[in-house]
Parts: sequence; structure tokens; C-alpha cells
Amino acid sequence: MNDTQKNPREPWWDGYARSLEKMPRPDEKSRDAARARQDTLTKPQGALGRLEDFACWLAAWQGREKPRLEKVETLIFAGNHGVTAEGVSPFPPSVTGQMVENFKGGGAAVCQLAEAYGANLRVVDLDLNHPTANLMREPAMSTDECMAAMARGADAVGDNVDLLLLGEMGIGNTTSAAALCCALLGGAPNSWTGPGTGLDPEGVSHKAEVVARAIELHKPHCAHPLEALRRLGGRELAAIAGAIMEARSRCIPVVLDGYVCCAAALPLERAQTGALDHCLAGHVSAEPAHARLLEQLGLNPIADLGMRLGEGTGAAIALGILRGALAAHNGMATFDAAGVDNRE
Amino acid sequence: MNDTQKNPREPWWDGYARSLEKMPRPDEKSRDAARARQDTLTKPQGALGRLEDFACWLAAWQGREKPRLEKVETLIFAGNHGVTAEGVSPFPPSVTGQMVENFKGGGAAVCQLAEAYGANLRVVDLDLNHPTANLMREPAMSTDECMAAMARGADAVGDNVDLLLLGEMGIGNTTSAAALCCALLGGAPNSWTGPGTGLDPEGVSHKAEVVARAIELHKPHCAHPLEALRRLGGRELAAIAGAIMEARSRCIPVVLDGYVCCAAALPLERAQTGALDHCLAGHVSAEPAHARLLEQLGLNPIADLGMRLGEGTGAAIALGILRGALAAHNGMATFDAAGVDNRE
Repeated sequence: MNDTQKNPREPWWDGYARSLEKMPRPDEKSRDAARARQDTLTKPQGALGRLEDFACWLAAWQGREKPRLEKVETLIFAGNHGVTAEGVSPFPPSVTGQMVENFKGGGAAVCQLAEAYGANLRVVDLDLNHPTANLMREPAMSTDECMAAMARGADAVGDNVDLLLLGEMGIGNTTSAAALCCALLGGAPNSWTGPGTGLDPEGVSHKAEVVARAIELHKPHCAHPLEALRRLGGRELAAIAGAIMEARSRCIPVVLDGYVCCAAALPLERAQTGALDHCLAGHVSAEPAHARLLEQLGLNPIADLGMRLGEGTGAAIALGILRGALAAHNGMATFDAAGVDNRE
Repeated sequence: MNDTQKNPREPWWDGYARSLEKMPRPDEKSRDAARARQDTLTKPQGALGRLEDFACWLAAWQGREKPRLEKVETLIFAGNHGVTAEGVSPFPPSVTGQMVENFKGGGAAVCQLAEAYGANLRVVDLDLNHPTANLMREPAMSTDECMAAMARGADAVGDNVDLLLLGEMGIGNTTSAAALCCALLGGAPNSWTGPGTGLDPEGVSHKAEVVARAIELHKPHCAHPLEALRRLGGRELAAIAGAIMEARSRCIPVVLDGYVCCAAALPLERAQTGALDHCLAGHVSAEPAHARLLEQLGLNPIADLGMRLGEGTGAAIALGILRGALAAHNGMATFDAAGVDNRE
């Protein structure tokens, strides 16, 4: 990504902004071919509902009438957050690193789901021993830190990936997500703030106050959505943004996870409408503001199961559904081949 | 099912009604053990949302803290309907038998989904050469026909089944479903009538008129919900009801499919509250009345993907999600084992 090299005469985000303008579009010929195929299969037209749409969407991004899900990669980015000093989470920040070990050992929920649905899983821990700065008091990341995290995200996307699932881990990161949403979408800080891993109502109020102070400090300086990401995000959020851009540059379809993952994607869509056209929302989580964020992003979630864990668990559940969509698309008989009469 | 032998002095449904009264209850000890296990796993309590509930529900019905999904059986019951003479479907009735062959050949959507999610599939065709009588003019089935179909459904449930998925095929059967719902739940005939496989609005109006005439004819004679099943249902609907009762008698958990499958289950719940406690709704379909029927049954659907195909496709999609729920439940590490700090 040479475009993203800093030039001292231009703002740090200019290279990314240029890349976003030049992002490839889906292959409409493959989408049309997939749609035409669907209409020959032994079912009333459209009767598989969104399963048909998912297959056609995968076709468009993979450039294949019959898409495949042979190599599905789950990337989990982990970061630590200085804002935990404000008491925004019921869990201690030590849990981020401990969960990274748990991911590596296969004991976390996302590990079990990824295995069940046939996805690889890779954890990328981002400088866990150096938490970001406390976003309530100063920018979470320097320009260099933010760009480095975005590059780590981009570099993590493997070769020949058919579908990318994105997830995160970071005690304190729903505070970042709320602040980012509030800065980029407006509205009251408390309308973007929820219980995260399980704050009580008093804790949520305190967290909203932290978000409000962060907005007051940083919003006047967010000349570009990526500047909001740098000031209010965290390394794992920046890495997710970098991975989404990298996937797009290679036309790899992406499944987003919950509130934090979608908040990390938000600056890209705000910077360039259509930047997330290669992304599906795996689910809508129980974190109250997630549904509203998805609406703002124009994303219709695949699953709605009251989950609120992050890690990529909602994206993994969606993978299970996409596998069914593809099995039907690729494996069903046509009316002609099966000798079934079509409608009169 | 000796209870269901006819005694000339009592109505035909009395044996079923007695069986429904004596149905076994779930194992609450296993449910509690599963819930306790969930609360030790490396995630905030409740963070997997409904996935946790599904695992505990399976535990309760299987009587195991760690449930299994080794043998999952999909039963598809197929029947033909005399009411097709009224022009209630855009597809000719020949399609029922042709689709049975397509099921056997693996070309139908449910075959691909069942294979993708690791379920067996068996098709039970119920006297396809002798359609039920035209329910607009007379009872769809005789007492003997209805009881025989229920017995076929019960007999079809295999041994050692961990989970049963139910589906159906029958051109014309959404008319039966609408008439059953209208007879048992009240409301206007057109409020239960939808496009099915794809009627245009004019066709839907005509179908609602057929339902209205059927209700006028039969409703005064529906002294028991199973009598409504006999008069307004079809063989595949009666078989589904029989399979649900058989599964319950053996504590086998069941996943229901769409509108027709749930309409077939409705008489049981109306006859005996709690008769469907061992059933989940796999999805809510695009057939407009399905959501309302699910509400009446107190069932919260697992998926909502705009599907409207029947066959068991919605139940199969739900199986994919249940596999994830179980993988997490059975395979995740505990806080202790993983050395992860719990909340402060």
C-alpha cells in the first residue's frame, strides 16, 4: 500500500482516502450468472430468500457463478485500552492477553464456532503490553501507531482467501466503539453506550460520561473519519479497518462481527460511500447501539440471536448460514435435470 | 400407541388426547447442569445469548449436561391435496411426486442443506396417487385416513435420534395450513392466507375465498383440534403431528419448519398446552401468516431469512446454528482451566 506512505505536506489519512476512492467493484456478470442459475433450480423463484442473495453476493465478489468457501479465514485482532483506567469494564484489562492465549489454545467460543463451520482462525495481538492512551484525556493513538495497526491488519489477510471473518478482543473497546459512533454519526453519547461485557446501569451511565468527555475533547479535531479512528479507536479497531481495505483491494468478501467490529468499519464507509459493499453483517448483537449502527451502515444482519461476545462469534454463526446458502446454490438440481414441472 | 386404538363408544381423537395428557416433561436437572456449565465458560455470563438457551434446551430433552447431535434425522412427509382442483397453487399437483423423486435424488434444497449440516434425510410419501378429498367441499380425510397418516408419521421416527427435523411437500398444502389456523385460532380467512409458492394478489384472494368456504363448512364440526386436522389438513400434516407426538413420547427434541409444518403442530398445542415444549421453530418464513402463528404457539424462531420453500429447509438452517451452539457448549474452556480472570 504505497499510497499510504506519509507525505509531510498532506494529512496522514490522504493515502487511505485515495485508496478508498479506487477500490474495485464487484463483478456484476458473475452476480447475474448466479441469479440466472438460482432461477433454474427446483424451487419457486426467490423461495430461498436471503440464502439466494448471499450466494449471488459471494458470486459477485469472488467473480464466480458458483462461489466456493474452501479457505475461510477468521482474523481476531486484540488490543489493550488506556481508557480502562476510567473503570469502563467489569473485567480487568489482564483478560485481553489471557483471552489471546485462550484463542490460541482453542478454548474460546469463536474457536469452537470456527471449527464447527470450517474456518481457520488466527489471532493477531497488537502490542498488548503497551495499551493505547486514555482516549478520555488524549488521542488513543499517534499517527504512527494508527498506521502501524492498520498495516498489521492489512498484512494479516492471507493468500487465496475465499471469505474473511473479522473479530476482536480488547477489554474497554466498546467504549472506543461508542465514542467512534458518536463522533461520526452524532446523537447523544449515552445513546451509543451499552453494558458491553455486563456493566450495571450505573456503570453504563459512567461509561457514557467517559464517552461524552472524549467527544468533547476530540470531535472538533476529527477533520476526517480516519482521524476519529486514530483518536477514539484502538489498535484492534485500526487493524480491522486495515484488513477490510486490504480485502476490498483483492475483492475478498468479508463478514463483520458485532458492535466493535462494525464501529471499526464505520470510518471507511464515512470516508467513502460504498467502502463496505464487500462486507456483510454477521449478526446484530444484544449491545443496544449495534442495530442502530447497522442501519446507518445500510447493513442487514444475517443472524439475530442475542449474542454479545465479540471475538468474531457472530461472524462465525453467519458463516454456518452462508455454507448452507452455497450448498443449495451449487448443489441443487435444475427443473430440467430433475424432470420437475415448473409453474403453470 | 395402544391408546390410539379406536373404541366405538368414544370419538376417534380420544386416544391421542389421553396420550397428550401423559407426555413426558424435560429433565430439569440436566437443564440446570447445562446452565451451570455455561456460567463457567470463558465469556461473560449470557454473552452467547440464545446459543446458550439452545444448548440448555437440548440438554433438558436429551437428559444430558452435554447434549450431542450425532444422529440428526430429517423427515419429509409428502401428500397430495384435492383442493388443488380449486386452483389454489401456481404449480400443478404433479410436482409433489416429482419433488419426492428430487428429494430421493439429492437435488432439492433440503437435501443440500441437510448434507451441509450433517443430517440424514428420509422422504415419506403418503399415498400420492390418492389425493385427499377437496376440503372446500368435504372433510379432507376420513377418520381412518387421518389416523393412518398419523401412524405413518410416528413410525417414521428412527431409533436413537438426537434431534428430529420435520418438513413437508404437497402442492396445495398452504391452503390446508391457512384453513387449520383460521379454524383453530379465529380471525379472517384472508389474514391466514398468503402467496404460498408464488400466487399473485388475485390468486391469494381466490385462495382466501376457498379457505372461507372451507371454514364455513367445517368449523361447526371441529369439536376437537384433531378433528380440524382431519377435516382441513392433509396426510403430510397428519403425519407431522404423529411424528411430533412420537418424538415427545421418547423425549426427542424437534425442530419445526415453516408455515405448513407449524400449522400441523398447532392442533397438538391447542389440544394440550405444552405439547410442543420439545419443539423449536427453525425459522420464520416469508409466508405472511407464519410469524403470527409462531406468536400464537409461543415459539421464537431461530432464523429469519425470508425463506418460503418448506421441505424442512428452515429447520435445516436452524440445525446449522444448533451445531454452533453445541460446539461452544461442549468444547469451550472454563475460566479456571484457561487461567482467565473472571469479572472483578
